[in-house]
Amino acid sequence: MDLTSRRDLLVILSKDPYGPDHDAVARFAVKVAEAAQRDSETLRKVEARLRLALTPRYKHLLTSISRQNEGVKMLADMRADLLATPEGTLPLGPDAKELAEVLRDLLSEWFSVGLLHLQRVTWSSPCDLLEKISQYEAVHRIRHWTDIKRRVGPNRRCFVFTHPAMPGEPLVVLHVKLAPEISDNIQSIVRGLEIDEEPEDPKRLFAAVFYSISSSHPGLRGVELGTFLIRSVVHEIQTEFPSINVFSSISPIPGFCRWLVKFLPSAPHLNALELSPTPSPQILTATESSQLQKLSTRLPLETLRDIAQGKGDWVRNEELVAALRAPLMRLASWYLYGEKLRGRAFDAVANFHLRNGASIWRLNWLADNSAQGLKTSCGLMVNYRYNLAVVEDRSVGYLQHNRVEASEQILRLVAEYQALSEL
Amino acid sequence: MDLTSRRDLLVILSKDPYGPDHDAVARFAVKVAEAAQRDSETLRKVEARLRLALTPRYKHLLTSISRQNEGVKMLADMRADLLATPEGTLPLGPDAKELAEVLRDLLSEWFSVGLLHLQRVTWSSPCDLLEKISQYEAVHRIRHWTDIKRRVGPNRRCFVFTHPAMPGEPLVVLHVKLAPEISDNIQSIVRGLEIDEEPEDPKRLFAAVFYSISSSHPGLRGVELGTFLIRSVVHEIQTEFPSINVFSSISPIPGFCRWLVKFLPSAPHLNALELSPTPSPQILTATESSQLQKLSTRLPLETLRDIAQGKGDWVRNEELVAALRAPLMRLASWYLYGEKLRGRAFDAVANFHLRNGASIWRLNWLADNSAQGLKTSCGLMVNYRYNLAVVEDRSVGYLQHNRVEASEQILRLVAEYQALSEL
Amino acid sequence: MDLTSRRDLLVILSKDPYGPDHDAVARFAVKVAEAAQRDSETLRKVEARLRLALTPRYKHLLTSISRQNEGVKMLADMRADLLATPEGTLPLGPDAKELAEVLRDLLSEWFSVGLLHLQRVTWSSPCDLLEKISQYEAVHRIRHWTDIKRRVGPNRRCFVFTHPAMPGEPLVVLHVKLAPEISDNIQSIVRGLEIDEEPEDPKRLFAAVFYSISSSHPGLRGVELGTFLIRSVVHEIQTEFPSINVFSSISPIPGFCRWLVKFLPSAPHLNALELSPTPSPQILTATESSQLQKLSTRLPLETLRDIAQGKGDWVRNEELVAALRAPLMRLASWYLYGEKLRGRAFDAVANFHLRNGASIWRLNWLADNSAQGLKTSCGLMVNYRYNLAVVEDRSVGYLQHNRVEASEQILRLVAEYQALSEL
Amino acid sequence: MDLTSRRDLLVILSKDPYGPDHDAVARFAVKVAEAAQRDSETLRKVEARLRLALTPRYKHLLTSISRQNEGVKMLADMRADLLATPEGTLPLGPDAKELAEVLRDLLSEWFSVGLLHLQRVTWSSPCDLLEKISQYEAVHRIRHWTDIKRRVGPNRRCFVFTHPAMPGEPLVVLHVKLAPEISDNIQSIVRGLEIDEEPEDPKRLFAAVFYSISSSHPGLRGVELGTFLIRSVVHEIQTEFPSINVFSSISPIPGFCRWLVKFLPSAPHLNALELSPTPSPQILTATESSQLQKLSTRLPLETLRDIAQGKGDWVRNEELVAALRAPLMRLASWYLYGEKLRGRAFDAVANFHLRNGASIWRLNWLADNSAQGLKTSCGLMVNYRYNLAVVEDRSVGYLQHNRVEASEQILRLVAEYQALSEL
Repeated sequence: MDLTSRRDLLVILSKDPYGPDHDAVARFAVKVAEAAQRDSETLRKVEARLRLALTPRYKHLLTSISRQNEGVKMLADMRADLLATPEGTLPLGPDAKELAEVLRDLLSEWFSVGLLHLQRVTWSSPCDLLEKISQYEAVHRIRHWTDIKRRVGPNRRCFVFTHPAMPGEPLVVLHVKLAPEISDNIQSIVRGLEIDEEPEDPKRLFAAVFYSISSSHPGLRGVELGTFLIRSVVHEIQTEFPSINVFSSISPIPGFCRWLVKFLPSAPHLNALELSPTPSPQILTATESSQLQKLSTRLPLETLRDIAQGKGDWVRNEELVAALRAPLMRLASWYLYGEKLRGRAFDAVANFHLRNGASIWRLNWLADNSAQGLKTSCGLMVNYRYNLAVVEDRSVGYLQHNRVEASEQILRLVAEYQALSEL
Repeated sequence: MDLTSRRDLLVILSKDPYGPDHDAVARFAVKVAEAAQRDSETLRKVEARLRLALTPRYKHLLTSISRQNEGVKMLADMRADLLATPEGTLPLGPDAKELAEVLRDLLSEWFSVGLLHLQRVTWSSPCDLLEKISQYEAVHRIRHWTDIKRRVGPNRRCFVFTHPAMPGEPLVVLHVKLAPEISDNIQSIVRGLEIDEEPEDPKRLFAAVFYSISSSHPGLRGVELGTFLIRSVVHEIQTEFPSINVFSSISPIPGFCRWLVKFLPSAPHLNALELSPTPSPQILTATESSQLQKLSTRLPLETLRDIAQGKGDWVRNEELVAALRAPLMRLASWYLYGEKLRGRAFDAVANFHLRNGASIWRLNWLADNSAQGLKTSCGLMVNYRYNLAVVEDRSVGYLQHNRVEASEQILRLVAEYQALSEL
Repeated sequence: MDLTSRRDLLVILSKDPYGPDHDAVARFAVKVAEAAQRDSETLRKVEARLRLALTPRYKHLLTSISRQNEGVKMLADMRADLLATPEGTLPLGPDAKELAEVLRDLLSEWFSVGLLHLQRVTWSSPCDLLEKISQYEAVHRIRHWTDIKRRVGPNRRCFVFTHPAMPGEPLVVLHVKLAPEISDNIQSIVRGLEIDEEPEDPKRLFAAVFYSISSSHPGLRGVELGTFLIRSVVHEIQTEFPSINVFSSISPIPGFCRWLVKFLPSAPHLNALELSPTPSPQILTATESSQLQKLSTRLPLETLRDIAQGKGDWVRNEELVAALRAPLMRLASWYLYGEKLRGRAFDAVANFHLRNGASIWRLNWLADNSAQGLKTSCGLMVNYRYNLAVVEDRSVGYLQHNRVEASEQILRLVAEYQALSEL
Repeated sequence: MDLTSRRDLLVILSKDPYGPDHDAVARFAVKVAEAAQRDSETLRKVEARLRLALTPRYKHLLTSISRQNEGVKMLADMRADLLATPEGTLPLGPDAKELAEVLRDLLSEWFSVGLLHLQRVTWSSPCDLLEKISQYEAVHRIRHWTDIKRRVGPNRRCFVFTHPAMPGEPLVVLHVKLAPEISDNIQSIVRGLEIDEEPEDPKRLFAAVFYSISSSHPGLRGVELGTFLIRSVVHEIQTEFPSINVFSSISPIPGFCRWLVKFLPSAPHLNALELSPTPSPQILTATESSQLQKLSTRLPLETLRDIAQGKGDWVRNEELVAALRAPLMRLASWYLYGEKLRGRAFDAVANFHLRNGASIWRLNWLADNSAQGLKTSCGLMVNYRYNLAVVEDRSVGYLQHNRVEASEQILRLVAEYQALSEL
């Protein structure tokens, strides 16, 4: 059965007569409204019946499936089918959306932390597990067996969460590099011939850098696993290496270029701006602008736009690189710190780490010069740092008050951005 | 903290402001009633908010607890506290009842079969597991280590369900005797010096007799585990012994004596009956009545009542035993087959096995002559037999249509009872 | 087959034509003697053939047996049969002795430490393992399951060595008590109602006392296992409790009373001695002698002899206990420190611990008032102490130079004994 | 330390004063010769001392090493060093040879079957184990991870022996193909794109073909492991697939070409032979000779020699292939069946399987057309078949009476060879 047929089936399941009993809901809603005056015993009884009517009738089926062998995996697959939006398909209707949510709630309940099993992956782990980890790696593709062997070798750690309901399946994977200090680029970690074979020397290891976190199953999107994994791993590493007390990610800024393209004034307007005596005050300083002007036949903002669209091979042009550094760092800092979606960080990865209680610690220039890294983040990467003493407070501060912690470097760059844009 | 304090705390938790938000319920109930006319998108949104309002606010807390180490066990303990009714305590109010039900639903969800782990217990199993099994045995008390050693020895099997959320805890225990045929008494299984040490001879083993099934944790009452365990064990035994194709329990009739005491006419009325020319037509035949009269200074029905109340040492009086056999077998058959509670078997053990898809197969006289057995079941035991080919159908037939399967022996005894009572 | 038949069979196996080929030995011995003059190549060839002729022909059979399932256990059982000396049987002839030695050498080779597996036994260990440990306990009998439960409970440790060739079999068992200081008696450890249930408090634990070490299989006598076990356990305990740095045994003196009976002058001579003006100068001081005289109708040395023979209930007589303390402590110290067999300690337990590198640290009065303890050791026990820094040196010192380390207490008592006996 | 230094050290260890005490040997040899007349007690004592003198003094050191962690592996490595004969090194002297033999005997004792652990390797086995198996494969090189994945996939089995003394080390590896019938070539098994992914269908599987057996550690050469592995695997496969009752290898003939080159008359003689009227009667028939003549400018026996030396690309020349088939099959049959070394099969692989109790069952033409296969075996392979009912008898028949079982095909080819050579 192909995806379309499976989706059709799920849409049928989500509707009458398998969904909630809307007639009964209406009936008991009226009774509840009437009973609100009466004694609590009666009220509770009517409420219970209303609650039952609101429970989709397919929920019983889902529970039955979960009790079968591999049943939970089947439900996760069902949810993945619902969330997949193959080209040419219509968006989900309200009933199918409800089904997807019911599935998410059930899966969240089962994948409670009490049953998640933290497992360190080594070169002695089962081959099929390592093969899956290779395949699931979303952030930095794994190409060969030597890649994955390095990732579980000395000065590295790889941890997964597994769950008894989906045996042998790594639900979420975290790759960690142990190092003297927080890494400022990804090349040295995932590419090249960096000699990791030197034995682990606890006396030289002070930092643990999370350089990739991947959730393996699309049906578990929105089921919170990564947060717990990071905290568990921090605990494991501190137990093994009491000397390591600095924990940080080295993360991409996946939405930066897309945002920048939209943020830059559109072409006609851009031309006008650039030709004016004080060109693009809010984006480039005069010095920056004139430097860029000298290095290209294009207008400065056009150059920026080209770069944000992944055009050209600017990264090999040393002068251009030098000229771009200041404005791109400033813009990226603002993007991370200032751009919001319903009060939260607009960037998905930033939002993930801030929710976990991390701070925005350092922006790194030329930190990912892969094609992908240049195209999505202009080669920038950011360290989100986990300060264990305050991680819980910061998480609450962010989730409840949208408070974002950032380092001096970030705050200074943001201030520069604001100063410039208020000219 | 003692039980009373813990219950007080749970009652507080079950009420405002931790329970359902009744005001919001009332508010959204009105809106749902209004929206019933409108388009489905709007309706679903209001329904979703109503559903949320009906969800007790403490449910979030319960889920958080479940995620802690040993959290699920703590929730089961909480439910056990709610269900315990120590002397002098008031019965649960509607809110606390609701909390107990929410807990049951959550526990049922977690203890889904997909995660239950069937484990055979042997003399090589951990000591603490065997100790717990000894302590939890509800049906036939285990006194010494030799008792439990025999129960896991040759020609026996002992299986438990464990669950990753409560490691090391046997949630439900099933004791099985392998034998040439279905046992007709419990003495030979759990008491005396029966030589179990003879090696297992698959050529002589045709029947598996379930002689004890105990649920270990009071907080899991109502969370269906026993049914799954019996089916899994049947599967295991058939795999190990293809020759074994007869599966049956040997079960007590825990409610029989209590029911009989109530069923017999009360004292004054009883006197009148006995003195009348056709005494107690519906209970004893004339022959039975006169035989009992000869063997006791008491009136026949008084003798029955005494026995049902556990008085006297009738089981050592061979004549009395012979005279009682026919009436007690007849009455017990009726009790098992004919006495109902909301359409289901009145006897809890009968209801358990019928729900599982078993039939009432054989009533056994003098099958449990322990003090406990005589007091609750007049020494009777019953075999519920599992015919695998039809077990699923019978379970459905019973659950949906209250249909009860019984053997010829049972049906004949029931017919005799009916013939007599319609005199 | 009973023991006698089995032994008969083994005797046959040990002789021609299954033993060494004595004719070939003689033949090649002559050739070796001749070849000694010649070049090394020829010599080595003749030596190789002589070596082969000297190898019992049954050795190939033994190796074949070892390769079968449970074969190693069978060989250990064979050796146990040879070493058993049931009443009425003749002692082993030279060939059977040789077979026993070949078996010991083979078993020693297999039970090399590389394959011995140190296992901590807890209440979660398999029941059959705990049952075997109970049965094998040679030093202080285990009576009930509560006994063995206590021995694996808090403030105790129980370790065994197992070996893949004899799975599930505890080859040697060591029981340890964790305490604030070295125990001076065994009662408080293995008897009574001492509350071990108080949780382990590393802040109050400084000493580990080995209170029982038992080798389980009689066929492994002489195969050194106990030494390795003690060293491994010391390592384990130090890893778990860095605070514990005192390690000692609390050991019986199994040969003391038997030795004392022989040591005391025989009856007639004894009479003469006692009646002389300076009675028994080498055994009792004048004061001791007169004190004992007052407390008994028997002569002082007769009293000593009675006690060494386990007669009377002297331990309840406080005055007698007080009068005996000094002479028995002095004699026991001498027995432990001064009595030798081929240069080594005469007492088997002393020899075991001294070989391991321990010192004789403290003699304890009224330390084992069980019937067994009074009969064999006059109620005395001794602590052999393991000082890890020097344990290796001391072991070598003892094995190569018969050097014995003892504490000041022991040396003072020995000096008293010597002073007295040289009067 | 490099190999040469390590070997130098071992040579020192093997000599005085660490080897056998030759002086003492000579001394006790004389005494034994004298004692041969006397009573057995004395004789045995002198024999015991002689045996001790013959035992190399380094044996105690070796045993001590074996007791260390990884000690057994170290001894196997030592033996590997002794057996290695790097270019330019002298062959081992008699003492070093003796050391190598003592090591082999010790290793044989430890690697007794009782402790060998049969383990099935699957794609869920540890990565490092699969990596080692890839590296150790001696018969058909494994190139990629997909190769090794196929080897543990459906319709295949891979088994290893491991031993507790060398944890994680596959001592000997056996690769098996499950198929409808015995394979007649290796290409279809280890090369190409053969679809193994079709699910296992027990109804179509009747044969198990051992297509590669590799001993992993050079220090264990001569320690018999492969025989036990084949028998254990036969047992495993029969348990899993009762339908499979044909067991056979598909094996190379590693010494065939080398033997053939030597067997063919040398060049000048060869010329003379070929030019004579009845050329090479014992090697080619007249027809074969003239056919080969037609197909090459070289003389027929020169052609054979070229092929045996791996020259030319004859396998692509269909006519040549057709003309060579009869003579090469005949010669190879004779080589396998008739060529002997001390009464045993000259070919090492043939000797291995015949010792195990197999028969020479089928010779296969063009069965291994890899460069290696053509060069060593002229592309031929042979099936050694294991008939379980008689495998034990055949092994004894071969080992004790040099009896070789062969199929009709082989015997017919051998008869043809004999008829021809006796012309």
